[in-house]
Amino acid sequence: MHFTSEIATDGVMERLFELNVGGERVPGVIWAPIGASQSRPLVLMGHGGYQHKKFASLVSRAHKYVTAFGFAVAAIDAPSHGERTPSEQTAQFVAEIQKKMAEGEPIGETVARETARLALQAVPEWKATLDAVQTLDFVGADGPVGYWGVSMGGAIGVPFIAAEPRITAAVFGLAGLLPGHEALADAAARITIPVEFVLQWGDEMVSRDSGIALFDALGSREKTLHANPGGHMGIPSFEVESWERFFRRHLQMQGAG
Amino acid sequence: MHFTSEIATDGVMERLFELNVGGERVPGVIWAPIGASQSRPLVLMGHGGYQHKKFASLVSRAHKYVTAFGFAVAAIDAPSHGERTPSEQTAQFVAEIQKKMAEGEPIGETVARETARLALQAVPEWKATLDAVQTLDFVGADGPVGYWGVSMGGAIGVPFIAAEPRITAAVFGLAGLLPGHEALADAAARITIPVEFVLQWGDEMVSRDSGIALFDALGSREKTLHANPGGHMGIPSFEVESWERFFRRHLQMQGAG
Repeated sequence: MHFTSEIATDGVMERLFELNVGGERVPGVIWAPIGASQSRPLVLMGHGGYQHKKFASLVSRAHKYVTAFGFAVAAIDAPSHGERTPSEQTAQFVAEIQKKMAEGEPIGETVARETARLALQAVPEWKATLDAVQTLDFVGADGPVGYWGVSMGGAIGVPFIAAEPRITAAVFGLAGLLPGHEALADAAARITIPVEFVLQWGDEMVSRDSGIALFDALGSREKTLHANPGGHMGIPSFEVESWERFFRRHLQMQGAG
Repeated sequence: MHFTSEIATDGVMERLFELNVGGERVPGVIWAPIGASQSRPLVLMGHGGYQHKKFASLVSRAHKYVTAFGFAVAAIDAPSHGERTPSEQTAQFVAEIQKKMAEGEPIGETVARETARLALQAVPEWKATLDAVQTLDFVGADGPVGYWGVSMGGAIGVPFIAAEPRITAAVFGLAGLLPGHEALADAAARITIPVEFVLQWGDEMVSRDSGIALFDALGSREKTLHANPGGHMGIPSFEVESWERFFRRHLQMQGAG
């Protein structure tokens, strides 16, 4: 883990870092209270497709979690996203999607296939990130860990959480399970932690049926589906507040702050 | 409006009352802070089938709303429920349901028909209740009014809110829309206030499809569906907290307390 910058703003210390995972450079960021030196709850945030580790809404949530709840928050650029060079397969995917959209064809299956491919690479990167940030004194290895990810961040998060016993609570959403995607279905079934799952009822990219199928596939005893009218980008602000309460409820830790 | 008792407990004044609506005696209850004399937000709570106006969980929520938020809360016995004598039709309905359940037959359509019949009577009773309690100095006619009702309380609430412009926010749930119930569909479509809608994914009485159909039929721009695993009686406690936040958000009033 190699830090490349450190910027303090409004009570929040933002540190950019780089990891080497299987020969790939993975750029990441971790936010924590300025001067923090004790272990605390950590939330990993998986950005969506076409976004990156410092997407505005993600940064805004990270600052809130740090300043209001004393959490640490970490994010990394997903494969082919942010500072990382798009792979040849991703370039082909983008071309295929643009063609399908221009022709008015459904894109769900194409997106699901590309996301599954990215997840194979992203899961070990997230695991390496968690290993690395838990060595930091202001995170520690004994605190509870949450994961937040919708859209591509959800599709990557499901196999990641299935393989990662350190995660104790997760928010997923804007992601679905299409017929034939057995690996995703199996991963979902292995998840047993509390999950809050958000869908948009008029999502242009994720059909209701596939979204409900992914929710149903989760093995968790405590899982709650929140569905609202509107499209993929239209999650209402009260859901953002609901995520805060969900993580505060499940990541509480004696002595953090 | 005729008061029959007044009991103060833990900061809450509970007043039992009776109304005469179309020749029928309708028993009700209103809870408010002890000593309250100013107008304040009001929540009407519609109990479920086989329950009554002072069902334990309803009383518990009423006390919380009064002591923590300064609200007034009112409930009435639905037709054929609580202190009211069951009608001949309701007795027939109960016999029919018991027979169907013993024979393992679906009861959704029978329940929906009986509830629709009860709603025709219950809607004017709720309207008379709201008229009456808004004359009380500790409620007033200028405050925001919410409605909470799941199961039978939801099926009655939908036509009530459709016909009642004074209600500004509602929680519904555990209720569905079956094919052919055009009156309920039309009522739902006339509702435009913010709604939080709760379903149980394994509800023995309300199918997922019918629950989603009722949610979809609501005309509201702001409506949010919360679905959780488990049966009709298994709504998780975090949904109860979510209702509190929903009503606090939508019924806030300057100067109440």
